[in-house]
Amino acid sequence: AVPAPQGCGSPSDGGSSSGSESSKDSSRCSTPVLDAERHERLREKMRRRQDSGDRWFSLEFFPPRTANAAVNLISRFDRMGAGGPLFIDVTWHPAGDPGSDKETSSMIIANTAVNYCGLETILHMTCCNQTKDDITGHLQKAKRLGLKNIMALRGDPAGEEWEEEVDGFNYAVDLVKHIRNEFDDYFDICVAGYPKGHPEAESYEADLKHLKEKVLAGADFIITQLFFRSETFLKFMKDCQAIGITCPIIPGIFPIQGYHSLRQLVKLSKLEVPQEIKDVIEPIKDNDAAIRNYGIELAVSMCRELLDSGVVHGLHFYTLNREVATTEVLKRLGLWKEDPRRPLPWAVSAHPKRRVEDVRPIFWASRPKSYIYRTQEWDDFPNGRWGNSSSPAFGELKDYYLFYLKSKSPREELLKMWGEELTGEESVFEVFTCYITGEPNKNGHKVTCMPWNDDPLATETNLLKEQLEKVNRRGILTINSQPNINGKPSTDPIVGWGPSGGYVFQKAYLEFFTSSEIVTALLKVLKKYESRVNYHIVNVKGQNITNAPDLQPNAVTWGIFPGREIIQPTVVDPVSFLSWKDEAFALWIEQWAKLYEEESPSRMIIQYIHDNYYLVNLVDNDFPLENCLWQVVDDTFELLNSPQPEPSEVLR
Amino acid sequence: AVPAPQGCGSPSDGGSSSGSESSKDSSRCSTPVLDAERHERLREKMRRRQDSGDRWFSLEFFPPRTANAAVNLISRFDRMGAGGPLFIDVTWHPAGDPGSDKETSSMIIANTAVNYCGLETILHMTCCNQTKDDITGHLQKAKRLGLKNIMALRGDPAGEEWEEEVDGFNYAVDLVKHIRNEFDDYFDICVAGYPKGHPEAESYEADLKHLKEKVLAGADFIITQLFFRSETFLKFMKDCQAIGITCPIIPGIFPIQGYHSLRQLVKLSKLEVPQEIKDVIEPIKDNDAAIRNYGIELAVSMCRELLDSGVVHGLHFYTLNREVATTEVLKRLGLWKEDPRRPLPWAVSAHPKRRVEDVRPIFWASRPKSYIYRTQEWDDFPNGRWGNSSSPAFGELKDYYLFYLKSKSPREELLKMWGEELTGEESVFEVFTCYITGEPNKNGHKVTCMPWNDDPLATETNLLKEQLEKVNRRGILTINSQPNINGKPSTDPIVGWGPSGGYVFQKAYLEFFTSSEIVTALLKVLKKYESRVNYHIVNVKGQNITNAPDLQPNAVTWGIFPGREIIQPTVVDPVSFLSWKDEAFALWIEQWAKLYEEESPSRMIIQYIHDNYYLVNLVDNDFPLENCLWQVVDDTFELLNSPQPEPSEVLR
Repeated sequence: AVPAPQGCGSPSDGGSSSGSESSKDSSRCSTPVLDAERHERLREKMRRRQDSGDRWFSLEFFPPRTANAAVNLISRFDRMGAGGPLFIDVTWHPAGDPGSDKETSSMIIANTAVNYCGLETILHMTCCNQTKDDITGHLQKAKRLGLKNIMALRGDPAGEEWEEEVDGFNYAVDLVKHIRNEFDDYFDICVAGYPKGHPEAESYEADLKHLKEKVLAGADFIITQLFFRSETFLKFMKDCQAIGITCPIIPGIFPIQGYHSLRQLVKLSKLEVPQEIKDVIEPIKDNDAAIRNYGIELAVSMCRELLDSGVVHGLHFYTLNREVATTEVLKRLGLWKEDPRRPLPWAVSAHPKRRVEDVRPIFWASRPKSYIYRTQEWDDFPNGRWGNSSSPAFGELKDYYLFYLKSKSPREELLKMWGEELTGEESVFEVFTCYITGEPNKNGHKVTCMPWNDDPLATETNLLKEQLEKVNRRGILTINSQPNINGKPSTDPIVGWGPSGGYVFQKAYLEFFTSSEIVTALLKVLKKYESRVNYHIVNVKGQNITNAPDLQPNAVTWGIFPGREIIQPTVVDPVSFLSWKDEAFALWIEQWAKLYEEESPSRMIIQYIHDNYYLVNLVDNDFPLENCLWQVVDDTFELLNSPQPEPSEVLR
Repeated sequence: AVPAPQGCGSPSDGGSSSGSESSKDSSRCSTPVLDAERHERLREKMRRRQDSGDRWFSLEFFPPRTANAAVNLISRFDRMGAGGPLFIDVTWHPAGDPGSDKETSSMIIANTAVNYCGLETILHMTCCNQTKDDITGHLQKAKRLGLKNIMALRGDPAGEEWEEEVDGFNYAVDLVKHIRNEFDDYFDICVAGYPKGHPEAESYEADLKHLKEKVLAGADFIITQLFFRSETFLKFMKDCQAIGITCPIIPGIFPIQGYHSLRQLVKLSKLEVPQEIKDVIEPIKDNDAAIRNYGIELAVSMCRELLDSGVVHGLHFYTLNREVATTEVLKRLGLWKEDPRRPLPWAVSAHPKRRVEDVRPIFWASRPKSYIYRTQEWDDFPNGRWGNSSSPAFGELKDYYLFYLKSKSPREELLKMWGEELTGEESVFEVFTCYITGEPNKNGHKVTCMPWNDDPLATETNLLKEQLEKVNRRGILTINSQPNINGKPSTDPIVGWGPSGGYVFQKAYLEFFTSSEIVTALLKVLKKYESRVNYHIVNVKGQNITNAPDLQPNAVTWGIFPGREIIQPTVVDPVSFLSWKDEAFALWIEQWAKLYEEESPSRMIIQYIHDNYYLVNLVDNDFPLENCLWQVVDDTFELLNSPQPEPSEVLR
């Protein structure tokens, strides 16, 4: 009984050559596949889910009208992204300058979703009444920004008397052809399907033929217009298959969220609301909550029918930029999956250039969007090893006011948290301490964010809460930290990441601002820990004190997985620390000092800290032992409290 | 008291820029400095030792006459290399075709020392009676082979009536100038110094002037001719310094090893042996051991005087290709340092192209010279990550008979160990078992090497001895293995490597040949261990069975060090396994089967195994738990011993 060979994709399968026939260039410096999905196109992801039987959902949003609404929408992307959509899509409104650089344009919202929220994103695009050059320009820009998927639409003709232009873009199929002509296979293309037929089509059958033309022209999948009965979709799907449409067809689900939004949508889409729905809604039309609850029930039961049919694998939701109804429907369907497993300890970006990225400096742990922004011009990203980075060129801080680097909270809110009036360095210590403890400050306000951290304390940091509180109270103003971890399972809900079956590790890390007096004592204490603790200490002027060997990066988070190379996603890098330093010090001024009047004592206190404090980071290299960084800090305070040292002992 | 900035080589020291001014290309994919010396030139290493006060030694060898002598010399390089010489040098004999490709040429011996033994090496080169083109050709070849240091000599003129050639190479200084003109700063250049003056020089003073000219022309350091009294050297050194020679001057030490070799050397060097030495030697001139012991005493006391002078940091030994006397002197001086610490788990090569190399497949663990040979054409080497190597182009096996890939033992020796006559597969199992246990085979001969392993069992493998014996007896013919290690100190004498203060880890590994019957059972057993054990199973025809995800490499040895990125020096790579497979199967035939007559039963037995057995490797990914690979093997044997399985259970 000789075992039969099993393929497994081996290149030498069945052959006896040494495999030296292919290029050797491809043999090194290539990409690990920690998370296969990160490397797949949307259509491949869809195929993989279909093959594995995993059901999925996607979410549609429209561009917001104001900058504030944009900030809110991006927070919503982060929150709804946590439920695990396969993709989101952003609609295109020709009247709203959708391809511009405005923070509210379709293009920029989609850019933010892909790059900063790490979401697979489809950008809608319409072609009606637009020149070929305009359209090509939009597509080139989308590609440049890292967008990989286009929903190709005709769009509504301007004016009533629309006539076909010869050689113009009259139908979505023209746009599909154009994308394939000009961009080959770069984009995944989605087109719209009309379960009841397009309102302007000659007939349902004629519309099906148009749909087939769009697919033949190069569309990869279809998302349908909304509908009210599952039979409508299932019949449509059968009819599509009957005329030879084989690509995925995704039903568009519209949970009714209110009387007016329903009426408006119906008017636009020229659909008829079934009598049985009207009968329910009309009597409760002024009760928003009742309508929404009914909408949720209706959507859930229709979705169940669709999924039970066996031919539907994914559901597309028209969210109307709202969260509650869609999230509720998804939760009831069991499709909302807040997966505690993360592919890497930090949130990955979905830009194709960043597919291989698997190492980042720890400094931006609480500001991932800022890190992505400051590295957006990089042509390639570190993979496996950060390297002896003599100078990673981080983007300048001149665009500092870019909206998604600003605090999510308004000025009044920040003043309540960080103090209407500061009376000295101690009032600042107090703010840091309240942020750590979660207790209200002396005016009764909880401190839920800091200039360096827009969100409440991370779960992992909670493990260190007690010690953090103690040191912040005494002027060690912590902005980043992690405990040491010696081989916890990669599925650990708090510190785990990566595929299952692995082990994750961390070196203890502590980063803080502190006064030069404390730094002087700290440096004396650190001599005792010379071989164990690596430190970098820098002030705003860039005066830098470190014991890092040859300015090499220190890996502080890593994972060991079955059948894979080591992954070390987080490093303390001495060189990029100096870029982070600029940002970390600037945040004192930009976010905090500027809350107060010029020349006011409060502003001067922050300015004094900015000008005189040091930014310190400490790594305890002995990850299997108990974290010694608290001992280092205790020793420092003890030294400061001890009777005057000899003058010669004082560092100058 | 504000801490003063301390340089530490920070690029932004004292400045406040974000460091974005330099090129960003240099920021990634660069080199870690695990072992700083690996990246230094010889003159930098010398300087570092001088600065740190660490004393060092170097060793001179001459090229051997026969291929067998070359094999012995290379073993000597490995053994004497273990004592930690700063460099070795290989002399140049114009009459012996020193620049040729013969395995005994100076060029090829130096090449072997650098590339295969990992020794910093100086190649001597003489210029007298040679054309510029010849010399340039030799230098280009040396550079191509990875040699970085040249000892520039005049050489002995051919014939008695030597005359200076106009524009020719008349003196060593001409060669020094030529090297600097043609190769800029690529080579470190050494020149010879004559503590008693060159025999052909007009005077001692004139000779010192010639030496200064050589240094001014670009020589980096000086090695002296032998001498018999420390005063001779110390005066010479003082005289050199007096005329402005500031480069390192290394005394050449000649431990007297025998009457005849001393006489010959004295004749060649035209030196006079001091009367007090003659007085001792003449009476014992026929007693080799007595002369050698005296020579050792003499050398030790002279070396002590030199080192005690405080101006001597390193000693250069004329070994005459012998081991005992020099090793003894070095040990008595405390300079012989068998450092159990290794920069990486495998022996590194000293070729400049391989400076960054820090990952290798585990398969060649016992055949590092073969790995270096088969990858010598690579333009760059894996650094940090092996990568998803779709095809590392390993050199073909056509040059299989290259002398340093052959067994060190002669045919008769191998037959005694591996059996004059094999009677079946069991006789082969017996050979493997004796190699593991160290017990003599049934004819009373110890098995000290195997086709896959030219050396006795590694210390680390000894940890697994008992289990290995058991499985080899039953036909699991192991050729490579390592135990799992969960965070031992990097200074551990058995499994440690890399800088101190780190922690090393391993996944358990087992590689063996075995019959298709055992493979069939093994595959059934492995189903139980699917998520824990990765396997690759291949036969000589390349039929390949594996559960490796996406053909990715699996890191099986890694280390975590203070202030550094993770190092993962050893991987199980599914793709290069197929190149190793060719070599591993070929060794059955080339080293073992061919010991026997064609058509003989013994040869047919080996041929049968070669044609029908599988090469298997297993990795236990759960390194923190007890190694499960022995359980896998036990389960396999148990399954084989259990009553006949259902026919449908048998893999075909």
